[in-house]
Amino acid sequence: MRATVLVRPKPGILDPQGQAVGNSLRHLGFEVGEARVGKLVDVELTTDDRDEALAQLEQMCEQLLTNPLIESYAIELERA
Amino acid sequence: MRATVLVRPKPGILDPQGQAVGNSLRHLGFEVGEARVGKLVDVELTTDDRDEALAQLEQMCEQLLTNPLIESYAIELERA
Repeated sequence: MRATVLVRPKPGILDPQGQAVGNSLRHLGFEVGEARVGKLVDVELTTDDRDEALAQLEQMCEQLLTNPLIESYAIELERA
Repeated sequence: MRATVLVRPKPGILDPQGQAVGNSLRHLGFEVGEARVGKLVDVELTTDDRDEALAQLEQMCEQLLTNPLIESYAIELERA
């Protein structure tokens, strides 16, 4: 089963990359408010059980993929 | 209207960060296949028209947010 983990800076955490993107977009003429930049990780799991996959992905997020002090995450499982 | 742009390395493009993540996950004991790392951009648009928003976001991707030679993108609009 394939999954995508979306990692974002938590609200209130300074995001200079997002500020730079927002400024550049406005400079190019786009009417945008705040922009925030995060990362995504696509991962191929060996399990096809959705509950098991979610449990594994949460562990991965806590152990490696995110810094829980400053980042939040969302998990998207491939539709069955 | 809020939107999220997901930017991924195209298939076949070397992704050393993804390889490192995959190796680290396996080292931690997770059974995973390939991992790929990309970025995401959350952006707040002034328009509430979905077609207009999509058109603007595609332009943003082509002009600033992605390198079309090596990256593909997907756009997720906030549900109305």
